[in-house]
Formats: sequence, C-alpha cells, structure tokens
Amino acid sequence: MSVAKEFEAANEKYASSFTKGSLPLPPARKVAVLACMDARLDPARALGLEEGDAHVIRNAGGRVADAVRSLVISQQLLGTREIVIVHHTDCGMLTFSDTDIRNKIRSELHQNADHIAFLPFSDIKQSVLDDIELIKQNPLILDVPITGYIYEVESGKIVKV
Amino acid sequence: MSVAKEFEAANEKYASSFTKGSLPLPPARKVAVLACMDARLDPARALGLEEGDAHVIRNAGGRVADAVRSLVISQQLLGTREIVIVHHTDCGMLTFSDTDIRNKIRSELHQNADHIAFLPFSDIKQSVLDDIELIKQNPLILDVPITGYIYEVESGKIVKV
Repeated sequence: MSVAKEFEAANEKYASSFTKGSLPLPPARKVAVLACMDARLDPARALGLEEGDAHVIRNAGGRVADAVRSLVISQQLLGTREIVIVHHTDCGMLTFSDTDIRNKIRSELHQNADHIAFLPFSDIKQSVLDDIELIKQNPLILDVPITGYIYEVESGKIVKV
Repeated sequence: MSVAKEFEAANEKYASSFTKGSLPLPPARKVAVLACMDARLDPARALGLEEGDAHVIRNAGGRVADAVRSLVISQQLLGTREIVIVHHTDCGMLTFSDTDIRNKIRSELHQNADHIAFLPFSDIKQSVLDDIELIKQNPLILDVPITGYIYEVESGKIVKV
C-alpha cells in the first residue's frame, strides 16, 4: 500500500471529528514559523499550535533563502507580525557539502545540479543566526520580532539562540 | 507577551512527556509531503503523521518551484521515495496576482519585488496538476509515486486530484 493510501485512511478519521471548519484565513496568532522539514520535528505539537494559529513554512534546514516568497506573502497579504525560526540538532544539513550532493547527482542521475545552492551548514547555532540576519537585511521583509531556536530531537526541547 | 514566549511555555509541556528521543534521521515512511503553509492545515494531524514519519515541506501555496532543493535533499540524502502534494480550499494564493503584491510592496515598502514570482493561482485543482507536472519534468527528482490532494479547510477532508 502506498503511503498516500494510508494518509487517506488516517484523514477519514481526522475529518470524522473535525470541528474547525470556520476558521479565518489570516493566522490568529499573527506569527510565521520557519522550520526544518525534518521528520522528527512536529512544529504544531512542539510549539503548541492549533489549526488556525500560525503559518508554518518548512524546507531542508529551515533556511530563509527559499522562504522569502512565503514570508512576504505571510506579512503583506495575511498580516503576520512575528517570525520564529526553528533549526534542530542532528540535522541532515550538517552531513554533506554542496560538492558532495552535486557529485552524487552527477554520478547517479547523470544530471548537473551545480546551479543549486543546497544550503548545508556546519554549525547549528550559526545557521540560526545567519538566517535571522538574512531576514533582517531583506528590505522586502518587515522589521518584526524574530526569535531563533534549536529544537533538540533527543529531548523535544527548544533552546533559544 | 510575544508568541515566541508562548511557544516556550507550550514546549516545556511537550518536552516534559517526550518519549521519541531516539528516532533515526531518515523518515520512517519514506515520504515527502509538500503542503501549503496555511494556518488551518496541520499536515501531521490531517494525514496521521507521527514524529519520525515524513519530511514535511511547506510554503505559500505548497508550490514546487521553491521546494526543489528540499525534495532533492529528501530523496538523495534521506531516502524518501514517494511525494504527496496538499493544496487546499480558500487558499490565499487564489486572492491576488503578481501585479497586486508587487504594487503593494512598491507603494507601502518603497521596494521593487518585480524579480519575485509569487506563484499565485486561480484554480486549486489546476495548481495541484501543475505542480505534479513540474516534479515529473524535473530531471533532478526521481521518478516516484506522486499523489495530489485538495484539503478542504471547511471539512478537514482531503480529496484526491
């Protein structure tokens, strides 16, 4: 069975007791969370988010570079006025370099991926600081409170950077 | 109180009963979910995901264009072999055009955003089909099963496209 089929079964259960059908489009808590796509991190459970509370933007590493479009839409069209960044321990982004993944793609897929910056990092605290700085320097993103955390996959805790 | 402070309080509670501290890095169910950042959509609850199950990539609209980096990392480095796309009803992306948001940014922020494609759409079913096609055509993304859904924010149900 494909995972999609399993999702359909799980969703039937979710929808059968669904009571949140009239929530407004703009996030109630006016916050955008930018987090890593890592499977072990569930931003809603780890941060206490209910449906309707917050925009949740996720990508490999929780990086700003390919989240700018989403952050601008979140602020300009849907009124969020705070940003929270969540990177995490044991991140896959700590395990490779651009050269590694480009070589793997060249050798296994026979494709050229030299035009993609995969945005790996070697220091999880620095990566959060770098992404906060990228937001602050971007003139398309409003000057709003930004808080960065490292989520510990070992303990479930967030630690402020 | 900032929302970040509220997140810290909620996280204390989450971490106090945390039992999932030894999950492996690669997603157990070998799937990457690409979904909209919308506040009303909680992919984990709606699809039955537990910590460790799946990569969850989210952006404005759940679009492929700025998810390629993450999808390639998910497949090449962390072994996912299925993709599930989730767009949804009442999406903010249905409410504006590139011209609208660029004009708003020019008038309110005095900045030029003409270099950003904000990727709005006018048909929610077509946007899912378009994104499936973009994945299929991308030589950096493996030929794996892709399933597209529209999540109904009114009912909590996913409907296969």
